[in-house]
Amino acid sequence: MVSAAPIKLKQLAHQLGLSCSTVSRALHDSYEISPATRERVKQLAREVNYQPNPIASNLRSHVSKTIGVVLPQVDNHFFASAINGIEEEAQAHGYHVLIYLTHDRAEQEKTVASFLGQGRVDGILVALASATRSVGHFDKLRQQGLPIVQFDRVNRLLDTATVTTDDYASAYQATEHLLRAGCRAIAHLHLTENLSISRRRLQGYQAALRDHGLAFDPELVLGAGNSNEDNIGRIAQLLQQRPDTDGIFASVERLALSSYHACRRLGLSIPQTIKIIGFSNMETASLLAPGLTTITQPAYAIGKEAARILLQALTKRRPVAVSQSLELKSELVVRGSTSGTQP
Amino acid sequence: MVSAAPIKLKQLAHQLGLSCSTVSRALHDSYEISPATRERVKQLAREVNYQPNPIASNLRSHVSKTIGVVLPQVDNHFFASAINGIEEEAQAHGYHVLIYLTHDRAEQEKTVASFLGQGRVDGILVALASATRSVGHFDKLRQQGLPIVQFDRVNRLLDTATVTTDDYASAYQATEHLLRAGCRAIAHLHLTENLSISRRRLQGYQAALRDHGLAFDPELVLGAGNSNEDNIGRIAQLLQQRPDTDGIFASVERLALSSYHACRRLGLSIPQTIKIIGFSNMETASLLAPGLTTITQPAYAIGKEAARILLQALTKRRPVAVSQSLELKSELVVRGSTSGTQP
Repeated sequence: MVSAAPIKLKQLAHQLGLSCSTVSRALHDSYEISPATRERVKQLAREVNYQPNPIASNLRSHVSKTIGVVLPQVDNHFFASAINGIEEEAQAHGYHVLIYLTHDRAEQEKTVASFLGQGRVDGILVALASATRSVGHFDKLRQQGLPIVQFDRVNRLLDTATVTTDDYASAYQATEHLLRAGCRAIAHLHLTENLSISRRRLQGYQAALRDHGLAFDPELVLGAGNSNEDNIGRIAQLLQQRPDTDGIFASVERLALSSYHACRRLGLSIPQTIKIIGFSNMETASLLAPGLTTITQPAYAIGKEAARILLQALTKRRPVAVSQSLELKSELVVRGSTSGTQP
Repeated sequence: MVSAAPIKLKQLAHQLGLSCSTVSRALHDSYEISPATRERVKQLAREVNYQPNPIASNLRSHVSKTIGVVLPQVDNHFFASAINGIEEEAQAHGYHVLIYLTHDRAEQEKTVASFLGQGRVDGILVALASATRSVGHFDKLRQQGLPIVQFDRVNRLLDTATVTTDDYASAYQATEHLLRAGCRAIAHLHLTENLSISRRRLQGYQAALRDHGLAFDPELVLGAGNSNEDNIGRIAQLLQQRPDTDGIFASVERLALSSYHACRRLGLSIPQTIKIIGFSNMETASLLAPGLTTITQPAYAIGKEAARILLQALTKRRPVAVSQSLELKSELVVRGSTSGTQP
C-alpha cells in the first residue's frame, strides 16, 4: 500500500547521532530530554515525514492513552460515582479508562498489578482491596516509572499522591451525632484494620467517645468480611451478646445495610431501639425504612481529582509527588435512622 | 543474555514451506488449519525449540488473554452481579477482564468499539447502551474476526449469540400481578424503544392488559432518559396528568426508584394509592419503605453463561454462532409495594 518505505525510528536516531530511546522520549516530550534536543529531533522528524508505528510506539513508550482504575468492587455507590468523575476527566484529555476489579482480595490485586505492568496502561488509579497488607506489587510498578495515584483506600507506604476524605473528622462527627441522639453503647463496624480508612475512622470513633467521657469497649468493634450474609449473622450475634447496644456506626455502606437486615432479623426497631449511621453514597438512602443517616463522601470529586493529578503527570511527563495529595470533606446527612432525643 | 540467536517464526515458516500466518495459526490451534498441518508445524517447533515472542505474538494473533466487557453503567445491581459471573468464568480460564462504560451513550459506545478493535482484547461481551440505534460498530469488529457475545441488552441485527432473559413472559407476569392486586390504570416506564428488552417488556405488558380485557393506553407509557432527577419530574407529571394511575411497572431498576421518589414528592402512598413493581437486582429492595416487588433476573448466571460462550469460542478458535443463544428465566419476588386486594 505504501509506495516508498517509511522512515524508521532507527534511521532517524542514526541521522541525529542519538539513541532510539532518546529520540522516542524527545518525540514524546519527556522531561528527561532537554528542550533543545527535543526541538532538534522534532524538526528532523517533520522534515523526513517520520510517522511512528502506533502499536510499536505503544510497546516502546507506553503511550497507550489509557489509564487503569483498580477497584475493590463496583456494587458500591461510592466507587460507581468515583468512576464517573474519573471518566469525565479522562475523556477531557482524550484518555480511555479501563476498570479492573479485585473483589477486595489481595491475590487478585497482585494479579491485576502484574497485568498492568505489561504496558497496557500509561498510569494507574487505585483504591486498595481491604485484604491488602503490603503494597509491594504497586511499588514495583511505580519504580518502573508507571505513575500511580491512590484514592480513598490508600496506604501511605506507597510513595505517591493520595486523594482521600477527612475520615478521622467525619467518623468523630458520626459518633458524636449518635451520642447526641442519646446512644451510650455504640458498635463500630469496619472491614479490616489493614485499610488506612478503617484505622482513621476507628480513631475518630474512639476520640469522640473519649471526649464525651465514655470508655472505649473493644467488644463493640466488629471487623467484618466480604460476605454480606456472614456479616448479617455476625452483627446479629453482636447485638444478642450485647443487648445494651443502642447505636451502630458502619464505616462502609454495605455494613450499614447488613445492620438493617440484622435488626430486622432480631425484630429490633430502628431508630427506637438501635440508631444507625453509615458512610454511604446510596441514592436510595432516603427511601429505606427508615431513611439512613449517612456520612456522604464527595465521591465524584475524589475520582475527578485523582484523575486530574494522574493526567497532569502523564501529559507533563513528570512523576506524581506525595505533595500533590488532597483531602476533601464529607457531609453528614441526617435521616430517620438516628432520630431521637437531642440532649 | 541468550547464547544462541533464537529461531524466528519466519525461519520456521521457511523450513516448512508455509506462510508465517499459517504457521502462527497452526501454533495457536486455529480451526482454519488442518489437523495434519498443525501437527507438522508443532513437531518442527518442538524440534528447534521455537519460543514465540509474547508481545509480538499478541500483536499478530491477538491472544491477549483478555476479554472486554462493554457496559452501559455500573451503578446498577444487575450489571454489578453480571460482572461477578463474567469474572468467575474468565478467571477459571486464565483470562483477564477489562470493563468499559458507555454511560448509555451511543457515541461513547462507538469510541469504545473502535478502541477494542486495536487488538487490546481477544473477545467482547456487550450489553448495549440505551441510546444505541445501530450496531455497525460492533458488526465491523465481528467481521474482523473478533468474537462477540451480547447479553441482556441485545440487538438481533448483530449476527452473534445472545444471553437474555424471558423479558416478554416476565413483563406479562409483572403486569398480571398488578392487575390481580386490583390495578386498572398501569403506567409502563422504560428507557428507550431502541433496546430489544424495552420492546419485549412493552409487548408483554400490552399482552397482559389485552388478556385481562383492558385497552392499551399510550398516554400511560413513559420513555425515560439518563438523568434520575429529570425522570422523577416526568413520572410526577404523568401521575398528576393521569390521577387515575394506580400502578407502575418499571422496566429498569432506577425507574422503580425514581417512581418511589415521585410518589413521595406528590404525597402518594405506596401501595395504598400506587402499586409499584420493577425489574431489579437490588439487595436493598426488601429494606425500602415499602419493600419493592421485583422481577429479579438471574444476573450472575447471565454473565457466567455469556462468558462461557465467548471463552469456548476463544479456546476452540471457532466463531460464536447465533444458535448458541440462551434465554434464562427471571423470578417474581412479591413485597410490600404491590400489596392489595387479590380478586
